[in-house]
Amino acid sequence: MPFQRIDVSIARSPELRTRIAEAVHRALVETIAVPPDDRFQVLTAHPPGALAFAPSYLGIPHQDPVLVQVTLSRGRTTEQKQALYRRMAELVHEAGVPPNELVVSLVEVGREDWSFGDGIAQYVPAK
Amino acid sequence: MPFQRIDVSIARSPELRTRIAEAVHRALVETIAVPPDDRFQVLTAHPPGALAFAPSYLGIPHQDPVLVQVTLSRGRTTEQKQALYRRMAELVHEAGVPPNELVVSLVEVGREDWSFGDGIAQYVPAK
Amino acid sequence: MPFQRIDVSIARSPELRTRIAEAVHRALVETIAVPPDDRFQVLTAHPPGALAFAPSYLGIPHQDPVLVQVTLSRGRTTEQKQALYRRMAELVHEAGVPPNELVVSLVEVGREDWSFGDGIAQYVPAK
Repeated sequence: MPFQRIDVSIARSPELRTRIAEAVHRALVETIAVPPDDRFQVLTAHPPGALAFAPSYLGIPHQDPVLVQVTLSRGRTTEQKQALYRRMAELVHEAGVPPNELVVSLVEVGREDWSFGDGIAQYVPAK
Repeated sequence: MPFQRIDVSIARSPELRTRIAEAVHRALVETIAVPPDDRFQVLTAHPPGALAFAPSYLGIPHQDPVLVQVTLSRGRTTEQKQALYRRMAELVHEAGVPPNELVVSLVEVGREDWSFGDGIAQYVPAK
Repeated sequence: MPFQRIDVSIARSPELRTRIAEAVHRALVETIAVPPDDRFQVLTAHPPGALAFAPSYLGIPHQDPVLVQVTLSRGRTTEQKQALYRRMAELVHEAGVPPNELVVSLVEVGREDWSFGDGIAQYVPAK
């Protein structure tokens, strides 16, 4: 159900990028009950200049941010989202990225807004 | 009105990618009354490793998914969305992609959330 | 708070792309009170064929569109969005892009849908 876009600098190695993607997915599984097989990630490595950002925002410095945007079904509480960010920062840190660099945004959609194949909206009754 | 992002593996040929993009757009036109000229698509071909996914989800296998995310104005019914997924899978299949590989997510926005050029919000009255 | 994706043709020079990104951000700052340091942009330059679009929509011609998608917190009025589009078209024009080419879509989210680093949802009270 979550569709995950992860945008990083190409300066981060392919191995690190793979670990980042695993960390982001694992945080979703651990904190907001995403099934482990519900993994759809687009991980894009960008050339220099393609990621534009300020040196800091709200007192948090950014030198090489990892930008994560997750589209997910509505219904998680603010507490669940806070737990998600916290765990994602921990796991991304374990993967090798300082937690200040992890920038996350969520986009909520309905259960009828998904099809996982075969032209079917799997999360709503068939009509 | 729909803004379409299509993410595929670079292993899919440029010709196939073009056919996929046409199929996705045509499904929108045929099922949810998108004007044929209302076509804005970003089709990205990703290197190996950039698309991360499980071998199957909800019993549907994925080997080389075509990930389609459509931002569109609110107001379609669940039935219309179901017709959209069904037709898109048919047309993508005709284009050369097995229907199990088509993964779609929709993001709904307001009519005031669009500008198609010249700095104007064409879908709402001018102020 | 806004997360900005900008998709352009690779035919636009790196210098122009940088100016476009600055123009888009500046329009957000000037019209909808985005803090200058709240800048998170992904600027992708696409090869030929990756952007698919009709030659015109609603009477506005497109030859080489600049596709801007901004995820932002809910709460702006339609008038503010109209001012945003108008100013963005002006600034992108000053940067060297004809205003008809600027296509914008907005996606609204909640204040709890953001983390700017350190695993914290900075826009809501800590729990």
